Amino acid sequence: MSLTERLVQIVGPGYVSTDADVLAGLSVDHTGRYRGRAGLLVRPGSADEVADVLRACRDAGAYVTVQGGRTSLVAGTVPEHDDVLLSTERLRDVGDVDVLERRIRVGAGVTLAAVQRAASAAGLVFGVDLAARDSATVGGMASTNAGGLRTVRYGNMGEQVIGLDVALPDGTVVRRHSQVRMDNTGYDLASLFIGAEGTLGVITTLDLRLHPAPRSRVTAVCGFADLDALVEAGRAFREMDGIAALELIDARASALTAEHVGVSAPVEGAWQLLVELAGDTDQTERLAEALDDARLAGEPAVGVDAAAQQRLWQVREAVAEVLGVYGPPLKFDVSLPLSAIHPFATQAADLVAAQAPDAIPVLFGHVGEGNLHLNLVRCVLDADTEHALYSAMMELIAGLGGNVSSEHGVGSRKRDYVSMSRSDNDIAAMRAVKAAFDPTGYLNPAVLFD
Amino acid sequence: MSLTERLVQIVGPGYVSTDADVLAGLSVDHTGRYRGRAGLLVRPGSADEVADVLRACRDAGAYVTVQGGRTSLVAGTVPEHDDVLLSTERLRDVGDVDVLERRIRVGAGVTLAAVQRAASAAGLVFGVDLAARDSATVGGMASTNAGGLRTVRYGNMGEQVIGLDVALPDGTVVRRHSQVRMDNTGYDLASLFIGAEGTLGVITTLDLRLHPAPRSRVTAVCGFADLDALVEAGRAFREMDGIAALELIDARASALTAEHVGVSAPVEGAWQLLVELAGDTDQTERLAEALDDARLAGEPAVGVDAAAQQRLWQVREAVAEVLGVYGPPLKFDVSLPLSAIHPFATQAADLVAAQAPDAIPVLFGHVGEGNLHLNLVRCVLDADTEHALYSAMMELIAGLGGNVSSEHGVGSRKRDYVSMSRSDNDIAAMRAVKAAFDPTGYLNPAVLFD
Repeated sequence: MSLTERLVQIVGPGYVSTDADVLAGLSVDHTGRYRGRAGLLVRPGSADEVADVLRACRDAGAYVTVQGGRTSLVAGTVPEHDDVLLSTERLRDVGDVDVLERRIRVGAGVTLAAVQRAASAAGLVFGVDLAARDSATVGGMASTNAGGLRTVRYGNMGEQVIGLDVALPDGTVVRRHSQVRMDNTGYDLASLFIGAEGTLGVITTLDLRLHPAPRSRVTAVCGFADLDALVEAGRAFREMDGIAALELIDARASALTAEHVGVSAPVEGAWQLLVELAGDTDQTERLAEALDDARLAGEPAVGVDAAAQQRLWQVREAVAEVLGVYGPPLKFDVSLPLSAIHPFATQAADLVAAQAPDAIPVLFGHVGEGNLHLNLVRCVLDADTEHALYSAMMELIAGLGGNVSSEHGVGSRKRDYVSMSRSDNDIAAMRAVKAAFDPTGYLNPAVLFD
Repeated sequence: MSLTERLVQIVGPGYVSTDADVLAGLSVDHTGRYRGRAGLLVRPGSADEVADVLRACRDAGAYVTVQGGRTSLVAGTVPEHDDVLLSTERLRDVGDVDVLERRIRVGAGVTLAAVQRAASAAGLVFGVDLAARDSATVGGMASTNAGGLRTVRYGNMGEQVIGLDVALPDGTVVRRHSQVRMDNTGYDLASLFIGAEGTLGVITTLDLRLHPAPRSRVTAVCGFADLDALVEAGRAFREMDGIAALELIDARASALTAEHVGVSAPVEGAWQLLVELAGDTDQTERLAEALDDARLAGEPAVGVDAAAQQRLWQVREAVAEVLGVYGPPLKFDVSLPLSAIHPFATQAADLVAAQAPDAIPVLFGHVGEGNLHLNLVRCVLDADTEHALYSAMMELIAGLGGNVSSEHGVGSRKRDYVSMSRSDNDIAAMRAVKAAFDPTGYLNPAVLFD
């Protein structure tokens, strides 16, 4: 029996496709920068079907690339070997919210927005938010340990996952759920699958933690004449009780949003910081005191009601929209010690000026975690120049004590640079774990390892 | 060359012992309940020496049991096979506190109390506190993912570990340190060693997160006539911003502290709850409001200054002292859904009344995590009866949706019960990880797996 026949047997004829147009569409990432080749699409409808699909592919010697919402920014779902594409799109169950224990069980193919809606309807909030919320799936977000706008308050995606089902490369399913918050009965396998980018198994179901909705919220956007003053303020703000967002936006980002979306920064200063506090009690006075202590370029804009807060968030939200106005930007997602943010901004700008003089370098991101996004807008380079620039940037980051990969993960885009952030022994240990779960290396072969 | 000669070569003659008295003392756990057999003691002085010791032992076919502060309550460090005892006591470096990044680097053999002192001297706090603070080492605490009195605020030990060195069973050292808080560059290996109870490698150095010291703190002890009212209040308190402690103490515990230490519960009610809020601002009013909403048995005792707070903590702290007044108690450390706390208390009491009628069942623990400690004080049973009672208790816990092991870990005491909380596939995946790191199974062979 051919692999196709075997897969049809497992999932039913409606859920296997070899249509060339379908496969071509799924073989390019959503930025259009990275393109691969797939042989077949299979869409299993349950954890057991996922496991059976994996076993069949392994036995047939086929490579498998897992696809969720396909919002990876590091080519995490681009097949390289005529792979079988395993889509999680049918794993769409949204369970009831357990209000008492603040949790919900969902399928891996459920979008972030759907989880947010379910939480909201129950008077709770989900701890992760990011721009791709309407497409990104919780399975992919767990597999990449996604971060986002609320990490400073609630942690990353991994910290929201309190249970999961995973189909392993050997075709078995590990179901790891606990009704309690403390569970020290053996290895923390869940953490191993979080951030493993699908190389150790396919997450099919997740129990997600939900949080009480804060009763009170206050937001401010403040401007700084120099980056050191912003970093100093950010360092103070991130230690505050109730810190709920801490977003940097540079002048080029707000110039782009003004030009293309008609949304302008509400305050003076080349460097802007959006800060939000939330909690059980009114935080307005505490925020005002903290802003008084910061070296601002002018008066901050403070929003105490929802409408004003939404206006303050507009520039930050619009940044994601305008990055692509001149075609796919060249993206760098990095983590830096706060003390390295200023040196990085300066040296990265120099690098760009030298190697991509026509590009517009846009810097924004999550100051609480030192997690910055540098986007080179209008960056059209030949492959060699792009590669040289990319590598030089990775070296710059590693040299400043940063991580070459932050909330976007490694994908295939950064696999050659992992050794800048991880030692040989560390990578050898990772390979040992990979070999323990997937000795033939057929699952998500393009990502993480070079 | 004999293994002893080889080990002397690695660590020096002063740090290898075959003294029978020394070995006998280290082969019994500190409760005196569990006794094993050791062949040799080795005390390496660095990560590289630990790695060399491991390689030598593996090559010689010797079993190795790792010992830190030897405060395990589940016989986690009792050797069963004439093992080599590998002590971390010489890994005692305490690095400088990095106040800006709120972190400290320490050796695995450093005690919790020493870390707390270093943090305090820098105006910061460490996020874990527990009764064994003067003996428990951070290496052991990380290996068991210890919990304690502050988990409800800061999480477990694992959530404090932001970097580590680990000597692997193959004699290599993985050094995993990051200067930044976001690190999604590959597998989260650190989480794999946290809670692995030394079966995958020996943690030798840790980077620990420190926290800002709260500017304000308020403590209350309140009494409840029935356990349901306490659980209901605990559920509300644990959701509050700034919750810093949430400790249950039953009437038998406070009767014992009154009798043996002269410390009495300060309020009426068979079930007592110590609740503490801490934060940047004064929490007294919020706590008063929350106490107003609870169904208390009488007026709560509220402490707003440090002296009053210390008095309120006395009963809770004294519980640890009095458990052993009639010899080693039989201890159960379990996690339960909050809704199962009352059924557990009732059914466990019935079980004890039937099978150990002379024992005094004492219940206390951390309500935020549903992490309870049931201690059978004055419990003298023959081995068969004890085994039957222990197993029945584990079954009761599993049947109520709890975990058979909570903050104390599995050790050798509970290895036969892991399958009550973990499925066969889950255990098979754990074994695959163990085999990847330690194919001959020579490292900490007595714990975790049956």
